Amino acid sequence: MDKVSNVRVGPLPNDSPYMKPFRLYFKQNGKEKNWDLVKAHDSVAIITLNKTRNKLVVVKQFRPAVYYGQICDYLNSVGSEVDSEKVIEMFPPKNAITMELCAGIVDKDISLVEIAREELIEECGYDVPVNRIEEVIRFRSGVGTTGSLQVMYYCEVTDDDKINGAGGGVDDELIDVHELSIEEAKEMLKQGTEHTSPPGFLFGILWFLTNKAQNL
Amino acid sequence: MDKVSNVRVGPLPNDSPYMKPFRLYFKQNGKEKNWDLVKAHDSVAIITLNKTRNKLVVVKQFRPAVYYGQICDYLNSVGSEVDSEKVIEMFPPKNAITMELCAGIVDKDISLVEIAREELIEECGYDVPVNRIEEVIRFRSGVGTTGSLQVMYYCEVTDDDKINGAGGGVDDELIDVHELSIEEAKEMLKQGTEHTSPPGFLFGILWFLTNKAQNL
Repeated sequence: MDKVSNVRVGPLPNDSPYMKPFRLYFKQNGKEKNWDLVKAHDSVAIITLNKTRNKLVVVKQFRPAVYYGQICDYLNSVGSEVDSEKVIEMFPPKNAITMELCAGIVDKDISLVEIAREELIEECGYDVPVNRIEEVIRFRSGVGTTGSLQVMYYCEVTDDDKINGAGGGVDDELIDVHELSIEEAKEMLKQGTEHTSPPGFLFGILWFLTNKAQNL
Repeated sequence: MDKVSNVRVGPLPNDSPYMKPFRLYFKQNGKEKNWDLVKAHDSVAIITLNKTRNKLVVVKQFRPAVYYGQICDYLNSVGSEVDSEKVIEMFPPKNAITMELCAGIVDKDISLVEIAREELIEECGYDVPVNRIEEVIRFRSGVGTTGSLQVMYYCEVTDDDKINGAGGGVDDELIDVHELSIEEAKEMLKQGTEHTSPPGFLFGILWFLTNKAQNL
């Protein structure tokens, strides 16, 4: 997953299906203002507990955006003379592997909980009926950039729900499924730690520890 | 703050200082890939408790990105025939006012905790020395889009730290300072609720309730 090479940066093509930037104009309290935005899909995420072992099921993947966040100051300092091999050596791509909740974008015309169910199959290999997936909370991610909705769910699975050969993502996705003990989850959230994970993951783990872990 | 009108959408100018989109190319496990990104500033956020009243100090502001997230399906459905007054009527801008932690972007060459200190003055009007601002956790926001770092702090303030006339943001910012009781904070995080807030805010509030609120 972290065998990454040949890193280079180019302009955003006008026809990018993933990133549609624009400017929103408006008047606020009588004053003309504008805000630069990017359109992003809404998404779902699922806090997943495997009851067979009482372990949280999470996913790990190389995140180009996180990698760029780590290398951008260096890239800017060297200008156009980027030596990809040197970048890789100075900034090991494995440091841009994130730990996240099972999640996916809303790009189909089915219910949000159905999308959550499909992501549990595609990313983690567990097939459960939607009535076992409970909604936790809804919020807006990227309030300064995308403002897209994320719906967070909680689901308990067992090894009996596993589909042989499923999980790890679809198409070109390279997703590792990982299990996290409750002790590891607590340790992870200790004050002073640094994560490649997004805040929604940290919230999901802390929500689980607060609301579900006591009874295990 | 929610007196918003004349909403329209235009292309992103090439010289936007806030939004720099591009494409990152790389090879992963032998396969050529790319990912569309937008460069965003790193940021700091401060979980703030006013000890004089044992209330959390949070900020509220109209977020154009959240508003766009709410109206974009409608805008797309009507194409170029957007009637701004109708948009405002159908989607009241007050629904895009977010509740957030005091926060700010890293756009100065001073330490992160110094930036946190300045944001506490500018947004909330409290002036505290940096040794009263403790680091909580570091994570990456927008792992699919920006990958920028956010450092979260915790700070206890009192009414004696208040600077007369400070707070509410600088330049054109319209930021309302709001106080949240511990009961209100608990209520807010109840299962099944919907927020305009970002996940970092929800994590910060839950972290506070878990780690700091018991002793009050």
